[in-house]
Amino acid sequence: MLSNQHSFTVEFGQCDPSGIVYNPNFFIWFDHSVHALLARAGLSLKALIDEYGIDGIPVVEYKSRFLAPARWGDQLLIETGVAKLHRCAFDLHHRVFNAGTLAVECAETRVCTALDPALGRVKARDLPAKLAEAFGGG
Amino acid sequence: MLSNQHSFTVEFGQCDPSGIVYNPNFFIWFDHSVHALLARAGLSLKALIDEYGIDGIPVVEYKSRFLAPARWGDQLLIETGVAKLHRCAFDLHHRVFNAGTLAVECAETRVCTALDPALGRVKARDLPAKLAEAFGGG
Amino acid sequence: MLSNQHSFTVEFGQCDPSGIVYNPNFFIWFDHSVHALLARAGLSLKALIDEYGIDGIPVVEYKSRFLAPARWGDQLLIETGVAKLHRCAFDLHHRVFNAGTLAVECAETRVCTALDPALGRVKARDLPAKLAEAFGGG
Amino acid sequence: MLSNQHSFTVEFGQCDPSGIVYNPNFFIWFDHSVHALLARAGLSLKALIDEYGIDGIPVVEYKSRFLAPARWGDQLLIETGVAKLHRCAFDLHHRVFNAGTLAVECAETRVCTALDPALGRVKARDLPAKLAEAFGGG
Repeated sequence: MLSNQHSFTVEFGQCDPSGIVYNPNFFIWFDHSVHALLARAGLSLKALIDEYGIDGIPVVEYKSRFLAPARWGDQLLIETGVAKLHRCAFDLHHRVFNAGTLAVECAETRVCTALDPALGRVKARDLPAKLAEAFGGG
Repeated sequence: MLSNQHSFTVEFGQCDPSGIVYNPNFFIWFDHSVHALLARAGLSLKALIDEYGIDGIPVVEYKSRFLAPARWGDQLLIETGVAKLHRCAFDLHHRVFNAGTLAVECAETRVCTALDPALGRVKARDLPAKLAEAFGGG
Repeated sequence: MLSNQHSFTVEFGQCDPSGIVYNPNFFIWFDHSVHALLARAGLSLKALIDEYGIDGIPVVEYKSRFLAPARWGDQLLIETGVAKLHRCAFDLHHRVFNAGTLAVECAETRVCTALDPALGRVKARDLPAKLAEAFGGG
Repeated sequence: MLSNQHSFTVEFGQCDPSGIVYNPNFFIWFDHSVHALLARAGLSLKALIDEYGIDGIPVVEYKSRFLAPARWGDQLLIETGVAKLHRCAFDLHHRVFNAGTLAVECAETRVCTALDPALGRVKARDLPAKLAEAFGGG
């Protein structure tokens, strides 16, 4: 199944007074990684919204463990891969390595939603065919 | 002219490894203050968009000076007031006090924009009447 | 066991182009809630660091579920309580309500760490007595 | 004088409900650019703190103008250069280009500070020699 990775340096402003990464930044990086994964598949959320009329692919679950600290100036590598496809949702797995050591891991589930005019609110809908194909590698 | 103020405590996660407020947070707080100023006038950007068909009120200029540090746990008071109204824009003035000392001041200009269908892009337009009235206090 | 709650309004700048809260903000709010819980117990991380020589209380695990969207202007209530105390760690439970509906829930575990001079790095240590007492309510 | 540039793509989560970059992000990017400029000179704030005993190089002034919007997916180029050196401070100039168009420009002044034990607080001090040399290009 599709996966992607990218490296970057922890910035001064991403750290807290303890000198370690301020935790919510990991979820920002996971989100960037999801968009990078789409890009790797030749897709973008913008194009999926335009082509399929979906509303978005919001997160419904994160299970994350923080195993080792990351500090200002550390070089991190985030590896994000598709773990499982469901009818309306998909599971991803993120692993953050700091100098070769697994520092953070996170299981993420996102669901595809669209506005249901009858209900007047968004609800789950089938994954766009292009996304299912690109992520499933089938 | 209309003004508003609110107090809050600097959070741990809003500070950097030097222990002082990570500077971009001031601009987040200025933005919150602008929305609070609208609320004080009985307005909201959302309602202005709906009623007047504007696109937004983006910032076009900030001039800010940082005079004294603010640290984790400090109680800050932000005072935001309307400084001047223009046809399509308005000037605001923010002052941040830390224990009675002026810590930051910032002059901000925002412009009212709307989509010009002929141009296919947003351009400046007259301030909504309700906003001009509420901000001008005239 | 100790718990705390606070209400606030979702700001414009905390939402993404879909108009819903940009997900990492929930983790910022959870962090603020942990500090508010300490404050409710008459404690602060700063004072614990000074008195007990600890390094911090970093997050080691989050399990979060996002059940309903929160949008610009929504009034949210976050309720944070202690779920369980361990020797060196504690479990918290956060619930975010949007107009009475449970929108997000999150189980969080934090560990108390201190520098081990022999190891030259931080490691887990016993919870400070004041924190254990305040959080345990025993 | 020393200058630096880097390109990046505007992320989904860096945009607000209007679909344009949430303004405070520009100040985060300016800060990253300052650290990148130091790195280009073979320096880091961390090393300057260690070698010269300085406390930091906090921002004392920003004058910024926002000339054109930047949207989700846009490729931005930030060019940051040293504009002028003072005894204890330095002026930088940032320009952000969006597809070749100048979108944002910002003049920034930072001051070098160190703890004055007699005063019991930080105050301005001479720029570290290595920084003055690297930034001055003299």
